[in-house]
Amino acid sequence: MLKKFFLSFSFILIVLSSLSTYADEGMWTYDAIPIKQIKEKYGFEPSKEFLDHLRLSSVNIYASASFVSSDGLILTNHHVALFAAQRMSTPEKNYVKEGFVAESLEKEVLIPGMSVRLLVGIDDVTKEIEESAKGKATPQEAKEVREKKIASIESECLKNEGLKGEVVALFGGAKYSLYKFKEYREIKLVMIPELSAAFFGGDYDNFTYPRYDLDFAFLRAYENGKPAKTENFLKINPDGIKEGDIVFVSGHPHKTNRLETYAMLKYKRDVSMPFEIEKLEKVRSLLKNYSKKGKEEARRARTMLYYVENALKSMEGEFKGLKDEKLMSKKLSMENELKREVEKNDDLKKSYGNPWKELEEAFLWASKNFNDLNFKMRMWLGERGLLGYALNIATYAEEIKKADSERLPGYHDADLVGFEEKISASNPIYKDLEELLLLFKLEEMVRGLGEEDPFVKTVLQGKTPQEMAKYLVEGTKLDDPSFRKLLVEKKAKLVAKSKDPMIEFAKRIFPEVRKMEELYKNNVQAIEEYALSQIAKAGFAIYGSDFYPDGTGTLRLSYGKVLGYPQGSTLVPPFTTFYGLLDRAYGFGNKGDFEIPPNLAKHLEKIDLKTPLNFICTADITGGNSGSPVVDKEGKLVGIAFDGNAESHPNTFVYDEYQARCVCVDIRAIIEVLNKVYNAEWIVKEMLGN
Amino acid sequence: MLKKFFLSFSFILIVLSSLSTYADEGMWTYDAIPIKQIKEKYGFEPSKEFLDHLRLSSVNIYASASFVSSDGLILTNHHVALFAAQRMSTPEKNYVKEGFVAESLEKEVLIPGMSVRLLVGIDDVTKEIEESAKGKATPQEAKEVREKKIASIESECLKNEGLKGEVVALFGGAKYSLYKFKEYREIKLVMIPELSAAFFGGDYDNFTYPRYDLDFAFLRAYENGKPAKTENFLKINPDGIKEGDIVFVSGHPHKTNRLETYAMLKYKRDVSMPFEIEKLEKVRSLLKNYSKKGKEEARRARTMLYYVENALKSMEGEFKGLKDEKLMSKKLSMENELKREVEKNDDLKKSYGNPWKELEEAFLWASKNFNDLNFKMRMWLGERGLLGYALNIATYAEEIKKADSERLPGYHDADLVGFEEKISASNPIYKDLEELLLLFKLEEMVRGLGEEDPFVKTVLQGKTPQEMAKYLVEGTKLDDPSFRKLLVEKKAKLVAKSKDPMIEFAKRIFPEVRKMEELYKNNVQAIEEYALSQIAKAGFAIYGSDFYPDGTGTLRLSYGKVLGYPQGSTLVPPFTTFYGLLDRAYGFGNKGDFEIPPNLAKHLEKIDLKTPLNFICTADITGGNSGSPVVDKEGKLVGIAFDGNAESHPNTFVYDEYQARCVCVDIRAIIEVLNKVYNAEWIVKEMLGN
Repeated sequence: MLKKFFLSFSFILIVLSSLSTYADEGMWTYDAIPIKQIKEKYGFEPSKEFLDHLRLSSVNIYASASFVSSDGLILTNHHVALFAAQRMSTPEKNYVKEGFVAESLEKEVLIPGMSVRLLVGIDDVTKEIEESAKGKATPQEAKEVREKKIASIESECLKNEGLKGEVVALFGGAKYSLYKFKEYREIKLVMIPELSAAFFGGDYDNFTYPRYDLDFAFLRAYENGKPAKTENFLKINPDGIKEGDIVFVSGHPHKTNRLETYAMLKYKRDVSMPFEIEKLEKVRSLLKNYSKKGKEEARRARTMLYYVENALKSMEGEFKGLKDEKLMSKKLSMENELKREVEKNDDLKKSYGNPWKELEEAFLWASKNFNDLNFKMRMWLGERGLLGYALNIATYAEEIKKADSERLPGYHDADLVGFEEKISASNPIYKDLEELLLLFKLEEMVRGLGEEDPFVKTVLQGKTPQEMAKYLVEGTKLDDPSFRKLLVEKKAKLVAKSKDPMIEFAKRIFPEVRKMEELYKNNVQAIEEYALSQIAKAGFAIYGSDFYPDGTGTLRLSYGKVLGYPQGSTLVPPFTTFYGLLDRAYGFGNKGDFEIPPNLAKHLEKIDLKTPLNFICTADITGGNSGSPVVDKEGKLVGIAFDGNAESHPNTFVYDEYQARCVCVDIRAIIEVLNKVYNAEWIVKEMLGN
Repeated sequence: MLKKFFLSFSFILIVLSSLSTYADEGMWTYDAIPIKQIKEKYGFEPSKEFLDHLRLSSVNIYASASFVSSDGLILTNHHVALFAAQRMSTPEKNYVKEGFVAESLEKEVLIPGMSVRLLVGIDDVTKEIEESAKGKATPQEAKEVREKKIASIESECLKNEGLKGEVVALFGGAKYSLYKFKEYREIKLVMIPELSAAFFGGDYDNFTYPRYDLDFAFLRAYENGKPAKTENFLKINPDGIKEGDIVFVSGHPHKTNRLETYAMLKYKRDVSMPFEIEKLEKVRSLLKNYSKKGKEEARRARTMLYYVENALKSMEGEFKGLKDEKLMSKKLSMENELKREVEKNDDLKKSYGNPWKELEEAFLWASKNFNDLNFKMRMWLGERGLLGYALNIATYAEEIKKADSERLPGYHDADLVGFEEKISASNPIYKDLEELLLLFKLEEMVRGLGEEDPFVKTVLQGKTPQEMAKYLVEGTKLDDPSFRKLLVEKKAKLVAKSKDPMIEFAKRIFPEVRKMEELYKNNVQAIEEYALSQIAKAGFAIYGSDFYPDGTGTLRLSYGKVLGYPQGSTLVPPFTTFYGLLDRAYGFGNKGDFEIPPNLAKHLEKIDLKTPLNFICTADITGGNSGSPVVDKEGKLVGIAFDGNAESHPNTFVYDEYQARCVCVDIRAIIEVLNKVYNAEWIVKEMLGN
């Protein structure tokens, strides 16, 4: 939560020599869609209306979603809405296990603390930002000026237009865009299937294809207590899509790193990733052991376990790509080609120098200081739960003392309304689980730094990790939303005086964390940002305009076609059906993760089993695209993206059309089960009736 | 056909340090079943009656099969019976495309030239063979004496017992067994499904699992025009098998090479296999082009194309294993361990020397002479069709001049009845296709040896490859069975005088082929046989008795359990069902190789779709096991083996229980479709009624 979003400075060369082969590559910003390429490959030219309508129907919900009726009905993935279902669940009503279907609009249930936003406009602000930094002596000075300018543009946007603004740096800072968002802060749950139907095959089948998951859910945006009137929304195509047809995927791909240099990839492969994988494996086994204690424990741990498993698989998939010599050589030869081009042109050489060398040195430093960076900094950032509240509140108390433009990202005036709401929102805290996770963290720190390390002594204050974890979790009142609300309302004053052990703990570790952040920023982060932006700019200067920027968590359009792929000597089909779900269930004896979901089993006779359930397409997606609407060339919704196959993990640093695929829930399956399984014809009617 | 079977001299160490992990490894001879191991792992001790009954119900049909009624009813694979169906087909009645179901016993159709045999006894003949060779000066002399002895034992067996005898050398010649067979020479076709049902997914899904194939067929053995009375036959278990249950697979695994040394595997990997794969790819493309000419051409080429595709996949799978560094290191370290054990014991060192070194040198010679070996010898051996008839008849005419014990294998008196029948049997010859294949062969030879090579000149006689191929195929009368019958009846005399161009061609190339065979025998084959037998014996001396001999094409028993396997991060199920066939069909748009087989589509409503269709088990099988009965611990038939999955290709040189699986048709699927699709309840009743 300390760093709510990041700016990405890279861009991607659509592979230079073979444009046509890789033409489905790319996560394009809506103000720079490669219309000519699309037309050449698919004979279809998306119009301005097509693109505006799709953009204005695309919903940002941390991941992705879309409006599917004029009354604010939102379609997204089950696993995107899962967090809400988990948060709303109690021992009495388990939204995860049982699912939920509102019988009508009136029965929809508010999701505490949830908001979504809509990208209503993109302004090019490159000029004003660049001008602000003109004539600055050092890159660091220029950068600071730019950051201040960005903060002021964002707060102006809120003040003048009532829209949340976010400046996104693209193409290594060759382009700055102000993304303007309308926010919806009142979101209700309309319908969510039970976990066993949305997640059939469980963790085994996560990232697997062929797949048989009903990974969808419906929410609704409200304004002033009434369904939001959404002018733009996607009509659904009840006839679905066919093999070979073009599709567009509109969503929010998280950070990709397709310009990472060979030195950076080697650092990942040899230093950071083996460590991260080992850590996640330990957390997974901790959560699994905790889950074994009882049903309630299993429920409490489920969502987190899901995210850990998910992260592990994705990381292992990327790790596999990093160890793939062919892939790595391809990266290296692309890098060397660009290097040579810079070398042989004096102007380019003067402008861009040798950023590859700088990165090599920076990551050598990161390798050498890996332990400190990890145990004194990284492990305390991005926390959730009690410790997360403490760290966020303590940061907040520090930051609001500063002028707006001096603050850390996420703590500008423009962020504060949302921040305060999120901190105060009701959110179940499981103290037993919190204590276990904190204990794990403390023990890892001791293991990594040794008992005699001064920072370890500061953290533990003479206590054992067990004692400290118990003391902190038992003593804190941060599990009470009203206490948290009080702290943020009274701001710095109360936080400074607070004797809450978790708050005190946060204040105690902060000096060292901030010091390490500073070191990291100077020795790695700033160099990384600057050097990558130099590489991006050099590439831009050399190769021209057929580029797309790396994922930034902001709205992008990908396109591709519905297409199976070769695997070994056979073929993987473009579609799956309900028949396949039953085959997989009976193939495993209809039990465990492969049991026919009870609601489906109950209504099996009614379901047309040959209805397409999931399908795959070549569109270039990554994490964050979950829930993205997939539309045909009429702009009608034919499915929603929910996963990449196992072969798509290395997408984070290289796109590959041979086997990597985006996996989608077919709209025909959604209609079929809404009508025949979930007794929710009214939702289908709402979507079709518009 | 020149070498009808081979003797195998190796045996296998069941991996030394971890018996329990690898306990399902092994293709055991019926006189040495590892009863103790089976009991330890599965708590089940197969009795002598169990084993005798299974052996006497197992039918040798080049591949494998079993008796399933007391009236000689035989169950085997569709792809084993396919050759017969192909041979019987005419433009009017296509047994392959349409399948065939006899309405009753009276309507069964004779398959020309087909025979099967039953292993009725195994005698240990080690002593007499070893004694015959005692005191011989050189290994070569000893070998020759042994071969003569073997030939005489085999012909004695026929004379005295009326049974076809075959001496099989096992454990590097540490053991010789006389296998005694009863032959059935009158075989009728009872039922064969249409190709699209037996081979759903076509060549794509060959070696694939999950799989959805009805790869079965029924034949019947007759004696004196009446159904053979078969005392031993397998009862079927209509309830099938469960996950985790033990199964036994009784069949005829072809040659495996699990004692091949690292030097031999490297020769395969670097020299012979790349060449063979390229050659097969060329033949495949030749057959595909030919098939495109028309429906009749496609029908003519289909069986051969199937075998070529099959061989290619299997070879590519093994090639993948050979290029797998982990697998190769495992082989190397096993080899080095054995080497060290021999080195450190003077007795062993004296007895066994350094066979690894000898093999390394032999395969270096083979590498250097690869071109000559291939184009002057190998490509003329094992031929089918017109050239095959010519080469076999010419060889036959030469061999029968010699004393029985001096002849090449396959031409002893004991073989002659079968040989003459096979040569004279009616068999469709497609001269256009024959000419194409012969032309390909001649062109390859010119490419490999060059136009100036004396052998090439002998072969072509001043003609171009085109002219020669046309001259031979157009001019020969070998497509007429009565001409072939005449040649073998009049034996050497007529053959020597024959002016048939194909016969003349065969006689012309023979001197060089025989010369190369002699060189190969002396420089590679004899060393290979001897050295491998030394390695086998050394291993036996060191590691003791937990071994099984390499596959020899003779009857073996494998065992294992029904078990899925991990793949990536997910699991592959132990069973598939009819649901899965439908999912795969609709996933590909229900067309081409993935169209629902018409007969199934017609009766879909009647089929219980959750009926298990195929299943997998860990039993150690390889090519030749096709059609093997799979029985439960009651000895009842629960399925028939029909394939290995893609992961099992390296089985030829190393067994791996992690992912390699034997793929079987479930008896429940066979019953379901006989009753509900093929209107063949009478066959089910015959199986159940006994």
